[in-house]
Amino acid sequence: MQIEARLKEMGTELPPAVTPVANYVPAVRTGNLVFLSGHGPFKEDGSLITGKVGADLTVEQGYEAARRIAIGLLGSLKAEIVDLDRVKRVVKLLGLVNCTPEFADQPKVINGASDFLVEVFGEKGKHARSAVGTNALPFNIAVEIEMIVAVED
Amino acid sequence: MQIEARLKEMGTELPPAVTPVANYVPAVRTGNLVFLSGHGPFKEDGSLITGKVGADLTVEQGYEAARRIAIGLLGSLKAEIVDLDRVKRVVKLLGLVNCTPEFADQPKVINGASDFLVEVFGEKGKHARSAVGTNALPFNIAVEIEMIVAVED
Amino acid sequence: MQIEARLKEMGTELPPAVTPVANYVPAVRTGNLVFLSGHGPFKEDGSLITGKVGADLTVEQGYEAARRIAIGLLGSLKAEIVDLDRVKRVVKLLGLVNCTPEFADQPKVINGASDFLVEVFGEKGKHARSAVGTNALPFNIAVEIEMIVAVED
Repeated sequence: MQIEARLKEMGTELPPAVTPVANYVPAVRTGNLVFLSGHGPFKEDGSLITGKVGADLTVEQGYEAARRIAIGLLGSLKAEIVDLDRVKRVVKLLGLVNCTPEFADQPKVINGASDFLVEVFGEKGKHARSAVGTNALPFNIAVEIEMIVAVED
Repeated sequence: MQIEARLKEMGTELPPAVTPVANYVPAVRTGNLVFLSGHGPFKEDGSLITGKVGADLTVEQGYEAARRIAIGLLGSLKAEIVDLDRVKRVVKLLGLVNCTPEFADQPKVINGASDFLVEVFGEKGKHARSAVGTNALPFNIAVEIEMIVAVED
Repeated sequence: MQIEARLKEMGTELPPAVTPVANYVPAVRTGNLVFLSGHGPFKEDGSLITGKVGADLTVEQGYEAARRIAIGLLGSLKAEIVDLDRVKRVVKLLGLVNCTPEFADQPKVINGASDFLVEVFGEKGKHARSAVGTNALPFNIAVEIEMIVAVED
């Protein structure tokens, strides 16, 4: 349980898997890949971080939202694979930032998730990634991120 | 042909695979995974459902568009794998809703596809998913959805 | 080195892999799949093609941007797999066009990448694809494309 120990050391508590708001599931494993649903940013009190980055939120607040999402993604991943030490590689993130048309710092926002994953998993946490903008997200959340992870047999 | 029988029972007729508008294909199989191209919402008469949800279309009309897309996706999937009973799991959807910046009910729209897939495939139809907004889609279609499916060897 | 010869014949010089602007990598291989990060359009002089298609750029300029991205994606792919002849299939593209809400020709833009890939790889280059719009991209780049490729063992 090295990864769990690392999270504890970082003072990070994983939430349970998100409860999907509809007819789908937080994660699907197929072969060695786990595909995780798009997750939103929940604060520790369970409320959502909402608003458009560039108007309602700063880059720093967007970064924190992305970090919170990464924590939630690990919560859903743990519910799926039980032991996070079975993670072989974080493969890919697609991060969408709810923002104004002028906003151009999506990478700095999604870094909140990328930095967290590398902090937790080290080299195994280094992933491919796309960071893009969008005009609207569910419940007006600030950021949404989906993830693909490769796990041991 | 249990899935085909189920579709018949539901009164659903699958269209042939979509004809891509350019130098690409509706679906690519690699190993046990089939990656399906982003599909748009075709009505039964072959015309497209267009407009922005939140302005030109209601959530209910968006839901119906997403359901029509799911039918089209199964049409393209059948063209690729011939027998839909070979579906092992619907793995992942990425659904994009053409909408206004204020619109925040993307999940309720993409449910049109998710509900249909679970209606058809049952537990095997439960997928990971991202439902997001966008300011613009090809031909001003209301919704676009891409899908990943795991199939038997 | 047939693919490299083909690129030379086409007068195309591959750049080195992109240098990610943060804590992630240009490409991750897992099993037979290579997931490539979202890439932006670099001109031959190393500067970025920026602006919104439909306002600042024409469809033709967007097409050229998508073609430049495809060249960059192959540069990053070569850095990962060394020999491009090991490409078994270009599996999937997700192409996002930075555009106005009225713009509806995203497919014509992303064709710049699709046409290039088919020109280089022939049948193996035919991929599944989604071409969508977005209100904003990093550094205001005109287009961003991510890619999945299947490679030989």
